[in-house]
Amino acid sequence: MCLTENKVAVIGSGLVGTVLAMGLKMRGFEVVVFDKSPDVRTIDFSGRSINLAISNRGWKTLGMIGVEQAIKKIAIPMSKRAIHKVGESLLEQPYGIKGESIYSISRGELNKKLVQLAEEMGVEFCFDTPVWDVDLDTGDLYTGESERGLWTKKTFKRVFGSDGAYSRVRLRMQRKSGFDYRQTYMHLGYKELVIEPDAEGKHLIDKNSFHIWPQGDFMLIALPNVDGTFTCTLFLSLEGENSFEKLKTEEEVVTFFKKYFPDAIRLIPDLLTDFFQNPTNTLVRIQCFPWVYKDKVALVGDAAHAVVPFYGQGLNAGLEDVGELLRLIDLHDDWKAILSQYQEIRKPNADAIAELSNRNFEEMSSHTADPMFLLRKKIETRFSKRYPDLWLPLYDRVTFSSGTYVEALRWGDFQNAIMDEVMRLSDIAQRWDSAEVEEYMLKLLKKVES
Amino acid sequence: MCLTENKVAVIGSGLVGTVLAMGLKMRGFEVVVFDKSPDVRTIDFSGRSINLAISNRGWKTLGMIGVEQAIKKIAIPMSKRAIHKVGESLLEQPYGIKGESIYSISRGELNKKLVQLAEEMGVEFCFDTPVWDVDLDTGDLYTGESERGLWTKKTFKRVFGSDGAYSRVRLRMQRKSGFDYRQTYMHLGYKELVIEPDAEGKHLIDKNSFHIWPQGDFMLIALPNVDGTFTCTLFLSLEGENSFEKLKTEEEVVTFFKKYFPDAIRLIPDLLTDFFQNPTNTLVRIQCFPWVYKDKVALVGDAAHAVVPFYGQGLNAGLEDVGELLRLIDLHDDWKAILSQYQEIRKPNADAIAELSNRNFEEMSSHTADPMFLLRKKIETRFSKRYPDLWLPLYDRVTFSSGTYVEALRWGDFQNAIMDEVMRLSDIAQRWDSAEVEEYMLKLLKKVES
Repeated sequence: MCLTENKVAVIGSGLVGTVLAMGLKMRGFEVVVFDKSPDVRTIDFSGRSINLAISNRGWKTLGMIGVEQAIKKIAIPMSKRAIHKVGESLLEQPYGIKGESIYSISRGELNKKLVQLAEEMGVEFCFDTPVWDVDLDTGDLYTGESERGLWTKKTFKRVFGSDGAYSRVRLRMQRKSGFDYRQTYMHLGYKELVIEPDAEGKHLIDKNSFHIWPQGDFMLIALPNVDGTFTCTLFLSLEGENSFEKLKTEEEVVTFFKKYFPDAIRLIPDLLTDFFQNPTNTLVRIQCFPWVYKDKVALVGDAAHAVVPFYGQGLNAGLEDVGELLRLIDLHDDWKAILSQYQEIRKPNADAIAELSNRNFEEMSSHTADPMFLLRKKIETRFSKRYPDLWLPLYDRVTFSSGTYVEALRWGDFQNAIMDEVMRLSDIAQRWDSAEVEEYMLKLLKKVES
Repeated sequence: MCLTENKVAVIGSGLVGTVLAMGLKMRGFEVVVFDKSPDVRTIDFSGRSINLAISNRGWKTLGMIGVEQAIKKIAIPMSKRAIHKVGESLLEQPYGIKGESIYSISRGELNKKLVQLAEEMGVEFCFDTPVWDVDLDTGDLYTGESERGLWTKKTFKRVFGSDGAYSRVRLRMQRKSGFDYRQTYMHLGYKELVIEPDAEGKHLIDKNSFHIWPQGDFMLIALPNVDGTFTCTLFLSLEGENSFEKLKTEEEVVTFFKKYFPDAIRLIPDLLTDFFQNPTNTLVRIQCFPWVYKDKVALVGDAAHAVVPFYGQGLNAGLEDVGELLRLIDLHDDWKAILSQYQEIRKPNADAIAELSNRNFEEMSSHTADPMFLLRKKIETRFSKRYPDLWLPLYDRVTFSSGTYVEALRWGDFQNAIMDEVMRLSDIAQRWDSAEVEEYMLKLLKKVES
């Protein structure tokens, strides 16, 4: 391999871009990462981020580049949902049927750690260097201080666009004939708030839980950090009856929190400062195709498929992209084959997790507050513990298995139809753990199989 | 009004942009039109265009700026479809129940005429001047020879993006939070071919017909020009069994035309030259919202809502946008109100004509070859002639009425359901014009009304 053959650019030094850069570096490529922002290690990264939940798929890719253990040190395992309902005692709902955990981690801390590890590995970073344009045919990048000033050309053999939901690389692809593209904003916005530690630096509430305050159309969540804090996120409509536009004064905010999140308000000491200083962010979904251009350019992570955050799978899906790309690079020499197989394998899975993520807002914000939903989960869990080969619940399949998202979506719909039948049984609340119900489920499963 | 208040920019000197510029000029604005391409009057505009069919909505706006008569001189009325089926005699299907016509016109000729008329009116044109960026908040435009070179700033009070399906103005809006956007390509491509006149310069086939050679998944159409030629368009899949990718050699093209369009092949003398010299074009659909930014910027025509060409309404819808904008400018002084009402009124109608256009490919390419479809049309026409207050066929409503596209879509679905019932009557082919069928339709209409 000659030197230019070897030189690749990664656009975006976020999580997916940095991990990809490491994977490529380990395979002998000369890797330069460009980012329009300053080095994440030099800035205070807070105020606009939702904490991440790394699960099986994410760990798998982090394992491929040998950083799994280093990252686990700054992550906190969460084995259950802790559901806070006004005037009721805390409800707990385990995540996995085998007691598995997802791992809470601060986006900023994770990013800092990854950039440090990548740099130690020899990946070159160009921060404060916006890439304004990419020549898809040649792999030339155009950088410069201002979009409206003069640009400088830099040539690479291949370009990876891991530059997020607002990707510049994708913007260039979008202007090619045949590029299908869709961006859709949710009516929901979100805002970061912080639960501070107690006087001894300990977590104020259970640190091994994913805390949810479900309120139907809106919700508050809290995920633990290693420093004793929790990063909270309020998801709320931008406009309408209960909405950000209705929370303009300090009084309105306090009244709203007292009414809907009475036990949370005492946990968030700087509620008003956080609320009015931190921006109200929007949620965008991105779908596009193709993801690659010839043997030159590939989109990875959010640049190819930004999803809403309600399944905690956005980062995991992006890291799964990276894992797939690295696997294909190890398998083939032909970059046209690598890139075309990459998008063929990943695109249907990205669509599946997008669909699952859309549906999960309702599960989190409404269903977790519904006793019949929790009963349904209990019936599923009981059955799957007794018949692990016959039934893996959807959440487990998405989060703790390594089967594809496409399979998870298909199985989920199938199991849902069966559970709808089960929940229609009379007196289900009384006899949910009876042999009768179990046999009925076995019968339904066989009926569909035949 | 002070001078700067008065200075507006129109991006794109296509049909919609030029007509809008004239409408604004007539209302006292100082109008500058920018276009990245050379003056259309100086170039040979052919080889990649589908002829236009102007109908009621288009004429209405052209009437508002006083150019209807001048344009009618270079247009040819078509009162019917002429349907060419292999081995069968020509079938004719009138367009309107009252014998109305749509008007065939060459895109190039129309554009040249409009630019000339606009210039005579005092509209300023800057050709060969790409607008690379727009500052949505200030109305500043950035132009320059190359996107990668230095840009020059030009300031305007308001900016209208009539820069087509690949709009640069929209590109800037797309990068704002909250902008929903979708671009979708069809599997179909299209190619322009030409039927030359006879030795005396006359049309070789009936010039007052819209000629269709329907073949199910693909079709050929021909629309007349005033110079004795017809502009033909072949719509065909880009890939697959019958597709452009399968027509690589001269022999393959000749075999294909002899098999599917045997009476057309003798009309197109330069078939092979046209076929291999003219590009294979793609068809993109664009949907987005919002269409406007504050009181500063508005998207008009294809920039806001590119549709597939199968209802012949793309230009008509764009001109209806212009008509609506001009109406609102005459009504209000407040530009925030003008622009927000403009998008509220036009967006649902753009969505409706997009849906109708998608559906109409099947009508043109398949149904026109189906005797039961033609019978259905005959029943509808007979009924609507007898009960004009009760029944206006969908095509007439879209093409010859000034009711909204939204109403047309709703009525069309309603009438479709009734016609489905009627076509299920036994022996309908024999008794289609009986009093019985007529009474049945009256009964169905009443049933739904009550």
